[in-house]
Amino acid sequence: MVQDVVRGGRLDGERTEDVNWLLSSAEGDRYIADADLLVDLAHVLMLLRQGILGEPEARTLLGGLLSLRDSGLPGSVLDPSFEDIHAGIEAHLTAMVGDEAGGRLHVARSRNDEVATCLRLRLRDELLGAAGDACALRAVLLEVAASHAESVMPGFTHLQHAQPTTLAHHLLAYSGALERDTARLLDCYARTNRSPLGAAALASTGFPVDREWTAARLGFSGILENSMDAVSGRDFALEALSCSAVLTGTLSRLAGELVLWSSPLVGFVVLDDSYCSTSSIMPQKKNPDTLELVRAKASSVSGALAASLGIVRGLPQSYNRDLQELSRHLWRGVDDARRSLRVMAGALRTARFDTGRMAEEAGRGGSTATELADTLAREFGMPFRTAHRVVAGAVRRGRLDLAGIEAEALATAEISLVARGLDQGRVDRALDPLESVRVRGTAGGPAPGAVRSTLGSAGARLERDRAFVIGEQERVRVAIDGLVAAAREAAV
Amino acid sequence: MVQDVVRGGRLDGERTEDVNWLLSSAEGDRYIADADLLVDLAHVLMLLRQGILGEPEARTLLGGLLSLRDSGLPGSVLDPSFEDIHAGIEAHLTAMVGDEAGGRLHVARSRNDEVATCLRLRLRDELLGAAGDACALRAVLLEVAASHAESVMPGFTHLQHAQPTTLAHHLLAYSGALERDTARLLDCYARTNRSPLGAAALASTGFPVDREWTAARLGFSGILENSMDAVSGRDFALEALSCSAVLTGTLSRLAGELVLWSSPLVGFVVLDDSYCSTSSIMPQKKNPDTLELVRAKASSVSGALAASLGIVRGLPQSYNRDLQELSRHLWRGVDDARRSLRVMAGALRTARFDTGRMAEEAGRGGSTATELADTLAREFGMPFRTAHRVVAGAVRRGRLDLAGIEAEALATAEISLVARGLDQGRVDRALDPLESVRVRGTAGGPAPGAVRSTLGSAGARLERDRAFVIGEQERVRVAIDGLVAAAREAAV
Amino acid sequence: MVQDVVRGGRLDGERTEDVNWLLSSAEGDRYIADADLLVDLAHVLMLLRQGILGEPEARTLLGGLLSLRDSGLPGSVLDPSFEDIHAGIEAHLTAMVGDEAGGRLHVARSRNDEVATCLRLRLRDELLGAAGDACALRAVLLEVAASHAESVMPGFTHLQHAQPTTLAHHLLAYSGALERDTARLLDCYARTNRSPLGAAALASTGFPVDREWTAARLGFSGILENSMDAVSGRDFALEALSCSAVLTGTLSRLAGELVLWSSPLVGFVVLDDSYCSTSSIMPQKKNPDTLELVRAKASSVSGALAASLGIVRGLPQSYNRDLQELSRHLWRGVDDARRSLRVMAGALRTARFDTGRMAEEAGRGGSTATELADTLAREFGMPFRTAHRVVAGAVRRGRLDLAGIEAEALATAEISLVARGLDQGRVDRALDPLESVRVRGTAGGPAPGAVRSTLGSAGARLERDRAFVIGEQERVRVAIDGLVAAAREAAV
Amino acid sequence: MVQDVVRGGRLDGERTEDVNWLLSSAEGDRYIADADLLVDLAHVLMLLRQGILGEPEARTLLGGLLSLRDSGLPGSVLDPSFEDIHAGIEAHLTAMVGDEAGGRLHVARSRNDEVATCLRLRLRDELLGAAGDACALRAVLLEVAASHAESVMPGFTHLQHAQPTTLAHHLLAYSGALERDTARLLDCYARTNRSPLGAAALASTGFPVDREWTAARLGFSGILENSMDAVSGRDFALEALSCSAVLTGTLSRLAGELVLWSSPLVGFVVLDDSYCSTSSIMPQKKNPDTLELVRAKASSVSGALAASLGIVRGLPQSYNRDLQELSRHLWRGVDDARRSLRVMAGALRTARFDTGRMAEEAGRGGSTATELADTLAREFGMPFRTAHRVVAGAVRRGRLDLAGIEAEALATAEISLVARGLDQGRVDRALDPLESVRVRGTAGGPAPGAVRSTLGSAGARLERDRAFVIGEQERVRVAIDGLVAAAREAAV
Repeated sequence: MVQDVVRGGRLDGERTEDVNWLLSSAEGDRYIADADLLVDLAHVLMLLRQGILGEPEARTLLGGLLSLRDSGLPGSVLDPSFEDIHAGIEAHLTAMVGDEAGGRLHVARSRNDEVATCLRLRLRDELLGAAGDACALRAVLLEVAASHAESVMPGFTHLQHAQPTTLAHHLLAYSGALERDTARLLDCYARTNRSPLGAAALASTGFPVDREWTAARLGFSGILENSMDAVSGRDFALEALSCSAVLTGTLSRLAGELVLWSSPLVGFVVLDDSYCSTSSIMPQKKNPDTLELVRAKASSVSGALAASLGIVRGLPQSYNRDLQELSRHLWRGVDDARRSLRVMAGALRTARFDTGRMAEEAGRGGSTATELADTLAREFGMPFRTAHRVVAGAVRRGRLDLAGIEAEALATAEISLVARGLDQGRVDRALDPLESVRVRGTAGGPAPGAVRSTLGSAGARLERDRAFVIGEQERVRVAIDGLVAAAREAAV
Repeated sequence: MVQDVVRGGRLDGERTEDVNWLLSSAEGDRYIADADLLVDLAHVLMLLRQGILGEPEARTLLGGLLSLRDSGLPGSVLDPSFEDIHAGIEAHLTAMVGDEAGGRLHVARSRNDEVATCLRLRLRDELLGAAGDACALRAVLLEVAASHAESVMPGFTHLQHAQPTTLAHHLLAYSGALERDTARLLDCYARTNRSPLGAAALASTGFPVDREWTAARLGFSGILENSMDAVSGRDFALEALSCSAVLTGTLSRLAGELVLWSSPLVGFVVLDDSYCSTSSIMPQKKNPDTLELVRAKASSVSGALAASLGIVRGLPQSYNRDLQELSRHLWRGVDDARRSLRVMAGALRTARFDTGRMAEEAGRGGSTATELADTLAREFGMPFRTAHRVVAGAVRRGRLDLAGIEAEALATAEISLVARGLDQGRVDRALDPLESVRVRGTAGGPAPGAVRSTLGSAGARLERDRAFVIGEQERVRVAIDGLVAAAREAAV
Repeated sequence: MVQDVVRGGRLDGERTEDVNWLLSSAEGDRYIADADLLVDLAHVLMLLRQGILGEPEARTLLGGLLSLRDSGLPGSVLDPSFEDIHAGIEAHLTAMVGDEAGGRLHVARSRNDEVATCLRLRLRDELLGAAGDACALRAVLLEVAASHAESVMPGFTHLQHAQPTTLAHHLLAYSGALERDTARLLDCYARTNRSPLGAAALASTGFPVDREWTAARLGFSGILENSMDAVSGRDFALEALSCSAVLTGTLSRLAGELVLWSSPLVGFVVLDDSYCSTSSIMPQKKNPDTLELVRAKASSVSGALAASLGIVRGLPQSYNRDLQELSRHLWRGVDDARRSLRVMAGALRTARFDTGRMAEEAGRGGSTATELADTLAREFGMPFRTAHRVVAGAVRRGRLDLAGIEAEALATAEISLVARGLDQGRVDRALDPLESVRVRGTAGGPAPGAVRSTLGSAGARLERDRAFVIGEQERVRVAIDGLVAAAREAAV
Repeated sequence: MVQDVVRGGRLDGERTEDVNWLLSSAEGDRYIADADLLVDLAHVLMLLRQGILGEPEARTLLGGLLSLRDSGLPGSVLDPSFEDIHAGIEAHLTAMVGDEAGGRLHVARSRNDEVATCLRLRLRDELLGAAGDACALRAVLLEVAASHAESVMPGFTHLQHAQPTTLAHHLLAYSGALERDTARLLDCYARTNRSPLGAAALASTGFPVDREWTAARLGFSGILENSMDAVSGRDFALEALSCSAVLTGTLSRLAGELVLWSSPLVGFVVLDDSYCSTSSIMPQKKNPDTLELVRAKASSVSGALAASLGIVRGLPQSYNRDLQELSRHLWRGVDDARRSLRVMAGALRTARFDTGRMAEEAGRGGSTATELADTLAREFGMPFRTAHRVVAGAVRRGRLDLAGIEAEALATAEISLVARGLDQGRVDRALDPLESVRVRGTAGGPAPGAVRSTLGSAGARLERDRAFVIGEQERVRVAIDGLVAAAREAAV
């Protein structure tokens, strides 16, 4: 039977099921199983290169590790009888290759630097993946926006009709937010992709390890210098959760809008059946469950962040077991964020927008009144506040026509707008939603031309981000392939 | 093949793995599988009693349900191809008993009231269980305290030695806090143990159901009246998480102290090996991992609460799928709390306290200086502030003896304490830790007599709470047994 | 100049503005200023009664305290040069009455028990007040509901039209939730209203204080026994914030609905101008700002709770200065909750509901399809699932009339409903929203009769809660009046 | 009397004190008062340049604004009778310069873009300031570390003595973490320093504004393109709070350690009096209150972040009043973080470390056992796991000397270490703390040479960050000075 190599020889005592449950890191360990083998390979190759391990032992260890990698780790490495996956893998390896070699795997390192390295290695892949997922959603947003540059709809503030805009302009608000979400993920990636390996328990090691060498082999961009910081810092995980929380916050807004828009009360969108469910009792229902869950995920990720911030608060240096609990929240939060991104991309790509309903609502609720006030100020020389007051008065009295405006202007400001040339045609034009959209051609505005300009610049930024993500993924892949190849060579 | 009975017939569309993952409620559903069968039994019996179902169909349904209960639900009821466990059970049942009967199980109800009923049923059991776990920990605290009524130790404020106390007195602080934690759990139990069944989707049902009858059969203390509130309210879950968060907050303080006390820096306690782990690289280590994780759990439960509060914020009436995500946090949070209670009870029961080290520290850091100042005020007529200032001055000058005190008293207040009868013996007595403890016999104080009095009253409160928990568990068991028996009788 | 009586004599060192800002408790202290004087009065009277203070000093102290109470505390007690308000009051008192008496105020107690007592005293008043505010909102809900027992509106799930209900039924969902919110506040009140006074720094005192006596004088229901628990426990504050968070969660749902309903997209409600604001640029806007802020407050209170749970996590016994930071969150959270309750009551009382719009929407979206399926099951013997499938098929094919239903029934289940007696009149009746509401007369359902029954029982529970709150407020008032009267008598 | 220019003319209704309290943004507005004047100046200059305003009105407006700036804004701009500070300033200005000019200030913009611009302008200054504060703390850490490169102390894991390290190495862990905290602040700065001005209410404006021009004048690095995103996005604020939360998390760990180290139980540090307080009853106490509050602030900032994430969750586009509540949390969180940084720098600079006590503890608890096991593996050819097991056995039997080791080696592995050359001198050397530190010269390790190397690289990174911060602050200052100068010129 494979035995726990770590605990043996030091501690007695049978454990209750509750204690085993509490101590188990299996929930997080399945995320880092593959990473652990890579870290082992890099470590053994370095030990060999530095003369810390002799060739025979190194060859034996590498052979065992490669065989575990090739055949896939057995589920039993996550068995609760091992303290964690690192102990599980070491025990399996030792059972394969014997104590003499197996017992040397852990020289010049500790589980503290090992787990920190595995977390960062897997997380950097997740962060690149998440950035890729965000880019994919941005692509969908740009694509849908491109077909709706003239689909007029009401713009809301406080859920009140404010000013007309277009669906394209509305969706570009989300693509703008997601650009920053992508940038945050990539900033976090840069800070995460540093190697703690060689920091050992906290004080590095007396063996002549080469930290830069293993870092490079594993695709890291460098080392985390101070060895105590390297094993005890979890700010990279907190940052990843922060990015995920802000990002799912963005998604929750879009999800909430799509839930609202797909309500018969609004009717702006019809979601594809594959993103909906029905009711067990109300056969007519088509519920936007998927998007409700995306909305809820924002809170789950915030909760994971809150938990993780709480866990590190006040912890002394260096490693404390509290940190194991944090990993669970990390993986869950990142999973929630990535899945939400992908589901949202699918939901949006397959949604049908009812541009008729949107247009119908665009002019409601006096939402072009601002444009009328602006027109009075812009073309008829009225101070803006006065124009605002005049139009507001007309709205209030339900007289948003030429006569009503003129009466208000005379009463409020002793100005005759008619005398200055205002006529019903100009009033009507100012109150036309499409016209209101067309004049808003300022940078970033809803006028079709401005939207097309934004589509162009946003598309360029999307390509830049995509290229970066793909480039980094390739760089990492090459490094890992090189590591495995080097291991195979040395193992022969 | 067993098919999803709910989705069929209304919606098209293949789902991606991400969508299925997002929609899956399996994580929470395993907690309510047994409850769901009980709710089905009560519902069918009521339908029969009210004449909504005929005898043959009712008999068939009850037979099928009892057979699922007796043989144990197959794991496949949690299969992701079903929308949730309710659909899974209904599908299995229908596969067993046919459409004619199976198709009638869901009459006069909805998954909305069904899931709310299952959540409350399982949670009330968990809350009683948690209260029982809290009582068990209180029992350990009282037991350990009873053996340490004279084990003098330093009392700390700001982690500075403040005044001497005893280990018993210190532990009773936690038993006091846990009394309130227990009370909160039981208050939450009372609010949770109400039946939403019969509320249907949100607007109750046109069938003549008897909500009070099913409530009583399931061991509930009554119904949740308004049917919309019944299906959409999750305040009982938020309250359960609040109780769990405050409770694990209490435990985190005790856990943090035991971690500190087991450090060689302090050495007040030696934890049993079964609650510790060792290091992979540092063979001398004996780490209080279990208690570090109990400490971390407080943050995890707070995170679950934060997530859940976030999920309900601003949700419109009535049911929204967001609520499914909340259940996951609920069960995890309650699990974390109960496990932490039990692990703490075990860790404390098996710990060995080093009373020698405690006594050694009890008098350090001038921690009896307060008693000396009190003595000057109490017996030598000095205003308290003056006495405080005199003793503080002596501490500051490192002259906490008769001469130093007298010099300060003369300088600060022009009072000769020696003239008033102070001598070295009285000073020594005031500075003796044990003496300082003994004079603090006020209600709730550390003097052995006061501690014994608290042990008595705390013990009585413990017995009262335990009796209540056991009584309610018995009451619920009798109701459930009665329900199953009635179902067996009707099924024949 | 009035000087800090606490710091003097022990510590040197000039403080930076940042340090003073950090240390200042002024933000929370203004909440407990009045409480502090009451605690001082009770303490001095007890010292006198127990012979710890002589009559002359006690008389002087009481006179000074009453004079501060009668003239109102000067703002300067909150001056940052004092460590906190307790030091500020003591310093002012000492400046008034001299060192000989002033220096005796603090005998047999510590700021640790003093602040804990003040927090609990003020908080119990706030909790009763909050319960009263919740009752006032419940009263408004019942009042509005009473006028709308027949105002049909759509009931929603997933923001989709689900089944018709009434405005009364919808509002009663909130009154049901607020009943539990009230109960939680009152449970918390019971746990809060216990006196820590006499616990001193942590280990009680060697002076023969009478803790029960001061507790009774201050209107507490008893003492917090263990003296360490008494000064270091803040679970009462965490519980008060939990109650506030769950409560504002309830309010956020109602607020969110009113924001949605006041959107021109929905048009169910017109809020009174005094609860709205307008736009600086869009004159037609009437924004439900007040309710948006009520919605946001739920998150603020959750944040205050999260912060407070984080602060206590892992803190060792007994008092640590971290706890000062918690008080700030406590008062803000309770304030936010109470203000939100009162604003919501006002907004609801002054709102006008557009029952025409509601009725218009009640039958939309096939929301009576469930009732039709129920009718098929109830009156035409069709298994519920089959009826559901038949109606769902008809909805899907846009044929929700007799012919469409019959065709589906024949195709799906080979049943002729027409043969069983279904006719167009029965279908029409089943699809009529008002009819759908009327048949739902189950306990807690929307049928006018059921609503009136709920109004009756909810009204009775409201009166019970109100009577309790008023009774306790009166009991407390009598105690405090008695305390002040006793102090006046002794001061002469 | 100065009147609210916004509300006038549209809405009726008296407001209760509660409504005014809820609506008031005064708490956040005081942070953006100065920014608002700058934004007004840039806006008016642009309006003039674009011909939207005539010279006379522009001159009048600029003159009024500059006079408000020169004389300082009156406190009355924050009066609750104004909806917010923007309305307050506009009203004051209009009272000064009359309706004809004052009424034109708000042309071509909205409070939505105005407030977003003010928030970003002030926040970018705060973020640079915070980065500067973080650099200042890093400088103190490096300075203190530089004097303690040979001050041996125990390194802890799980609060157990793990391996010897030095105070310098320990402090460098924090300087490493703070480097990343600084980098996060600066990344956030880059995303924050973009101008929303010109986005107006949500849909930009029909006036020919020049968004790039005002952005440059205000020192922004560019514009936020999409106008809806520009007014409704608050991810920059969430990111600033995330950075602050992670950063104060770092500080809370250092603060917690200093609290622990200043306990008489540990005695590693004596804090300066100016960072401590004393007890009202225990004259000997010197409490690390300041650092306890720094520790607590981490939770407060996390709470502010949790609240803010909650506020944005599910909000529809574009502006909603909920966002006002977020600003309050933003400023408080950033304040808490900056003050904590500065207080920590002061506390650390003035602290005295007791290197004697540290050295005394360095060798305790068998903390050099790892080095002994490493030595057996490194120099005596024993597999690492075996060496670990041998030393662990010796620790367990209390025989950590040559004889004990040899006995274990023979029993466990049938190896004679003595035969391989191990002698008592080698054992003693391996167990000497200083020796254990000296051999750990790996990159980032505690050996004095490695520490000096880290000091060098960390110092260089500090200088780089400082230079960047100062450069940006200067760049911003020049832009703002230029803006004011241009306004003065145009105002004449």
